[in-house]
Amino acid sequence: MKKLYLIGMGPGGPEYLTMQAVDALRRVDVFFMLEKAGRGKEELLQMRRDILRHYLGDDGYRVVVASSPERQTHTGDYAADVRTWHQQKRRLFAQLLADELQPGQCGALLLWGDPSLYDQTVSMVAELVEELAGDSSGGLDFEIIPGITSVQALTARHRIPLNRIGEQVTITTGRHLETCDPAEIENAVVMLDGKASFQRFRGQGMDIYWGGYLGCPDEVLVGGPLDEVLDDLLQTRARVREEKGWLMDIYLLRRRR
Amino acid sequence: MKKLYLIGMGPGGPEYLTMQAVDALRRVDVFFMLEKAGRGKEELLQMRRDILRHYLGDDGYRVVVASSPERQTHTGDYAADVRTWHQQKRRLFAQLLADELQPGQCGALLLWGDPSLYDQTVSMVAELVEELAGDSSGGLDFEIIPGITSVQALTARHRIPLNRIGEQVTITTGRHLETCDPAEIENAVVMLDGKASFQRFRGQGMDIYWGGYLGCPDEVLVGGPLDEVLDDLLQTRARVREEKGWLMDIYLLRRRR
Repeated sequence: MKKLYLIGMGPGGPEYLTMQAVDALRRVDVFFMLEKAGRGKEELLQMRRDILRHYLGDDGYRVVVASSPERQTHTGDYAADVRTWHQQKRRLFAQLLADELQPGQCGALLLWGDPSLYDQTVSMVAELVEELAGDSSGGLDFEIIPGITSVQALTARHRIPLNRIGEQVTITTGRHLETCDPAEIENAVVMLDGKASFQRFRGQGMDIYWGGYLGCPDEVLVGGPLDEVLDDLLQTRARVREEKGWLMDIYLLRRRR
Repeated sequence: MKKLYLIGMGPGGPEYLTMQAVDALRRVDVFFMLEKAGRGKEELLQMRRDILRHYLGDDGYRVVVASSPERQTHTGDYAADVRTWHQQKRRLFAQLLADELQPGQCGALLLWGDPSLYDQTVSMVAELVEELAGDSSGGLDFEIIPGITSVQALTARHRIPLNRIGEQVTITTGRHLETCDPAEIENAVVMLDGKASFQRFRGQGMDIYWGGYLGCPDEVLVGGPLDEVLDDLLQTRARVREEKGWLMDIYLLRRRR
């Protein structure tokens, strides 16, 4: 049997790994690194390599790097495009497992944040486990190692609670924020918002707590009443995106009481 | 100046601490442990002591244990009761900081899961920092160290993603689930549900992924279609609560597609 660890590496630096994650690293023969092409790819791969070097040194493991396929957007059907993209990734990863991991060996994927939050790797690997059940190679087993998410890094760095007394938290996407009724947002963490949809909430008594490159050396924070910090936030986002060529950010949007 | 670390210890065992948390432990002079009276108190204190012993041994730090006040429920006004309870806790903790921590020293609270999720300690300490600004003792500073939440432990142990493609996640309480319109729940993590409010969702095409004592030696999991596992889940909850005298649990409730 082959074993695969999905290891939550947290938001960036080696210090965010748990002891459980470090123990898992030490059992791994082959680390698979799949990263999308584009600006930022090399930096994101390097952060993984730095984590491995920090905890394991340079020997005793192999690293297999592959380019993750891009999501095509030509059909106009978002869900269908995503399904096609996931199938392509699953085929690629099935091939990598067949070629690069021997029965009895342990492989691993080092995943940003936590493996379960806005990352379809868990579903992909669960499907591969089913496909390979009864396979002549002995099949595949997998284990998830939780990691610190950027949500936790965000609240820690802003020194705020995620929720006020008895309050709900919604974790959602910029895609949803673009079109939802603004009145429905009371206390929401927004991920994957490339279009700065928080601008829709001007003049509505909202606070925003924003973080870019959380947990990384280039971390940048902006927080306060949305109406007061909006211009600064838009300028900051544009500047850091220009400087680095890519941006990973997240924010909490909260209606003031 | 005094410094206080709010350290997320994760869901139980020492293996869930991050390297950042372990580094912070090593800088601490005094660990404050506030725990509610009642069954489970000793076990919960012992898990913290085990973490300290695991990483620090027995020397070089002090432990100050205090009983956390109970929330009174006699006024019938939930929010007012909670505010009163938080004020009592803040006064107690201000006194502990004055009596037990010297200027220049580091104190710490080891908090279950992450300090920001359903834990008002962040707000309490932020208020104390304001109260003590300009104080003759030199004031108070604090830093939050993120920790793995039971939400991450839950999805890792069940080997499920927290959300399906593009889907939102709601984190809410049993208190909300008792009275909300069941139709509003699509994909929700429910915490603090002493009344097993998931029973309201029978016959509605829901899946449930439940975990008790996640990350602890007594961890127990139940998962599957709610209608199929409900009886087993109710029996399991009743049995483990009876055996241990207390129960910490959490679950994900998801409408099947």
